[in-house]
Amino acid sequence: MNGAESLVHTLIACGIDTVFANPGTSEMHFVAALDRIPGINCVLCLDETVASGAADAFWRINRRPAATLLHCGPGLANALANLHNARRGRSGIVNIVGDQATDHRPLDAPLTADTEGWARSVSGFLRTATHAATVGRDAADAVAAARTGTIATLILPADTAWTAGGVPGAPIKDLARPIPDPATIADVAAILRSGEPAMLLLGGRTLNDASLRQATALAAATGAKILAEVFNARMERGQGRPPIERIPYPIDAAIAALAGIRHLILVEAKPPVGFFAYPGKPGPLWPPDGTVHTLATIDQNGSAALAALTALLEVPPIPIVPTPRPAPDTGKIAPEAVATSLAALLPADSIVIDEGISFGRGFSRFTHGAAPHLWLQVPGGAIGGGLPMAIGAGVAVAGSGRRVVAIQADGSAMYSIAALWTAARRQLDVTVIILANRKYAILLHEYAGVGANPGRTAMDMLDLGNPDLDFVKLAAGMGVAGAQATTMAALNELLTASFERKGPFLIELLTI
Amino acid sequence: MNGAESLVHTLIACGIDTVFANPGTSEMHFVAALDRIPGINCVLCLDETVASGAADAFWRINRRPAATLLHCGPGLANALANLHNARRGRSGIVNIVGDQATDHRPLDAPLTADTEGWARSVSGFLRTATHAATVGRDAADAVAAARTGTIATLILPADTAWTAGGVPGAPIKDLARPIPDPATIADVAAILRSGEPAMLLLGGRTLNDASLRQATALAAATGAKILAEVFNARMERGQGRPPIERIPYPIDAAIAALAGIRHLILVEAKPPVGFFAYPGKPGPLWPPDGTVHTLATIDQNGSAALAALTALLEVPPIPIVPTPRPAPDTGKIAPEAVATSLAALLPADSIVIDEGISFGRGFSRFTHGAAPHLWLQVPGGAIGGGLPMAIGAGVAVAGSGRRVVAIQADGSAMYSIAALWTAARRQLDVTVIILANRKYAILLHEYAGVGANPGRTAMDMLDLGNPDLDFVKLAAGMGVAGAQATTMAALNELLTASFERKGPFLIELLTI
Repeated sequence: MNGAESLVHTLIACGIDTVFANPGTSEMHFVAALDRIPGINCVLCLDETVASGAADAFWRINRRPAATLLHCGPGLANALANLHNARRGRSGIVNIVGDQATDHRPLDAPLTADTEGWARSVSGFLRTATHAATVGRDAADAVAAARTGTIATLILPADTAWTAGGVPGAPIKDLARPIPDPATIADVAAILRSGEPAMLLLGGRTLNDASLRQATALAAATGAKILAEVFNARMERGQGRPPIERIPYPIDAAIAALAGIRHLILVEAKPPVGFFAYPGKPGPLWPPDGTVHTLATIDQNGSAALAALTALLEVPPIPIVPTPRPAPDTGKIAPEAVATSLAALLPADSIVIDEGISFGRGFSRFTHGAAPHLWLQVPGGAIGGGLPMAIGAGVAVAGSGRRVVAIQADGSAMYSIAALWTAARRQLDVTVIILANRKYAILLHEYAGVGANPGRTAMDMLDLGNPDLDFVKLAAGMGVAGAQATTMAALNELLTASFERKGPFLIELLTI
Repeated sequence: MNGAESLVHTLIACGIDTVFANPGTSEMHFVAALDRIPGINCVLCLDETVASGAADAFWRINRRPAATLLHCGPGLANALANLHNARRGRSGIVNIVGDQATDHRPLDAPLTADTEGWARSVSGFLRTATHAATVGRDAADAVAAARTGTIATLILPADTAWTAGGVPGAPIKDLARPIPDPATIADVAAILRSGEPAMLLLGGRTLNDASLRQATALAAATGAKILAEVFNARMERGQGRPPIERIPYPIDAAIAALAGIRHLILVEAKPPVGFFAYPGKPGPLWPPDGTVHTLATIDQNGSAALAALTALLEVPPIPIVPTPRPAPDTGKIAPEAVATSLAALLPADSIVIDEGISFGRGFSRFTHGAAPHLWLQVPGGAIGGGLPMAIGAGVAVAGSGRRVVAIQADGSAMYSIAALWTAARRQLDVTVIILANRKYAILLHEYAGVGANPGRTAMDMLDLGNPDLDFVKLAAGMGVAGAQATTMAALNELLTASFERKGPFLIELLTI
């Protein structure tokens, strides 16, 4: 057994069944081992940003890691943007990154790069394998780390893969996430009892139906407000679930949403700050005279903390009044109309991937009445996460009948458009709605904040017209069927049809 | 004058006239300054890998740097693969990378990332601006560094751009590249006089007509052989120029090419090693009993060293017999046939961008009879360099009537396919020849070296069919006209037509 084979055996034993792959020469022995040893579903992605974004979404749906197979150096670099998003969303991923053979690395061949250096800041676990005999143990350690919700990067010099003497590593038992201590629960209970203006800020894994119900009940009993973080890895939403809103993205609206709060209570959330800084505006979003408390850190079990708090305060469950499911909107194309149609037509148990940026920003507010679904955002704000996440979600739910709906801004789509090909190859049940406003609308808004009208040079950098992108043709070039919609009626029809068929479909919605 | 304005004034004063841009929110004040202060051609790229690859090619043609405008953190990360290529090719680039405002960075907003850490290993110059008042000086230092042929990365926290008090930096005088000392020249002269088997290995900036003629004359006079490095940033080639060959890429052929050499003399070249390591094969390509000598290091002026060596050895110029220009090939589609047609039809002073990978690997050997041209490769081996380089080359020669011809493998094209849009927007005179073998042919070859036939799982990761990519549709989706060729006659016709028209054109050549 060579090192690569021990690695594959270890991954399988540790519960890895999916690899999002973009291999290169230095990974050929690993590819050969994956070929020889059955048990892993290898999903080819046409570039590494697709592989890492897909692995991110796979975790968010399954709560267990997939692996990526990345080429050395620049291959890993191409994956970094979506690894950044995964890190911010606290997804677990096992990156297997090829590298020059140990003795070859000092020769500084052209493709040699600082693979470790590039991987470091996104990786909670980072190790370069040194011998075939220990690759198995390295892999078991990597999976164990990833299972806690971090990115585990194992760099695999080619010789550690091809050399004989591999030994499979034994799976390592999962550690439970720590629960906040009773004193912390009691402190927060006292704050809520005080009647002073308080807000529960929910993040991480607390955005599930049960925890949201407890938070809603706590709020009803104590007068506290509830918000979720601005961008969330995963939220259970839809009809019958508590309709929680998020901190708005625009800085002024975000500050307004937290105005008057005396006690900000974090539950697997970070102290909320502006996505960017703006001249003369504060960085922290809570009032200067407010106090921040932590019910559960981002590494703790916030759901258990909410349950304990509910018990301590003896707060009874309250009924959630289902938001009515709307009819499809047939008016003018506008954000509320599109969101309304989505709420009307979304199949139950769908996965919504939200990289809607400016046009799609308000969609979540108008979709509380949709059939129950998961809503996944881009927690790190790195552009181009949407389509790769749609691939990972599609693979995660393949064969289950569940539909993935990607709400995708046009400019952002072009960072990872090659993702569509994998949707076609795997015939994933993914509907992509391209919101085609043919500009970087978010930047035009930000530019206005700079206090100037954009001239020709600025518009050249903010406008996506000249020529217009044709996403239906782009999709066709990768084997994905699609159609353009220029009316709400057409959108409704295409959504309905795509939800009834198998496989991927792309709708280019002209929003201008 | 704010910091961003001082930055733009400094860039212009230091000779920067082109910015390949993919801006984000944190760069809006820089965009506004570019808008207000005329003098810089801002070329929008739909992702950062296009911007960095374009800047790389711009340098190689103009021998002066362009700037990139990259978004913070993940934006820079997306540019790394092509910055790796640029570093290996010793291109000068000025990266202006936005970042969180200085006081905002410690708040760890979602998009905050280790921008410096990611930039470090590709950057010969790396600095994070600290104050608006010193941004101008920072930029002058960055340009000065880039002009020496290195990547200069200036990270621009948003507050250093928007704050008043900017002061333009004064341009810094260029330093000449050092010339090897006379003793080194004399040592190499003695080796060449000895009559022992010797080889001049040429790299860097020595691959120009004058230096190649001197090297050819030296070889004729002394019996030494000549080769260029395996992948070169820029080579002056074509009819009437010395037909220099390169070290072959496949490991066995590479070792054979250097067999019997007693003295390997490096001229702006690195000691040649295998692109990758293979079990049981050596890393260094020269014979174990051979000696490596350095006529000029990669940072020295190898052309001056060759001239000095020629003078010392009193070697007279020799005539170069022009390789006959072939007729277009009308036989079966095969690498030699395609290269022959290219040699027949290539317009004079063209720029050839070579990311032909496996099918295109031998093209250079059959194009010595083409009209004089520049040939640019991917020196770092990071996949996806070709199309971005074609954009940069197209911008570098825009309006001159010179044609850019991109020889582009299909798999590699998908890493940076969004480049085509910029070709359409700018109506660049770029002809893209997609070599569509619908597989990762190079990896199938490498896989065979592992000693196994690929099974279903391996083929799933090495084959690009199912579905076939349609590059004509992909191009159309980005506003680039194109056509498929399935015969040499059709290829010849399409090449001829594309060379006669203005603007971009894509030919998908089915090579299977």
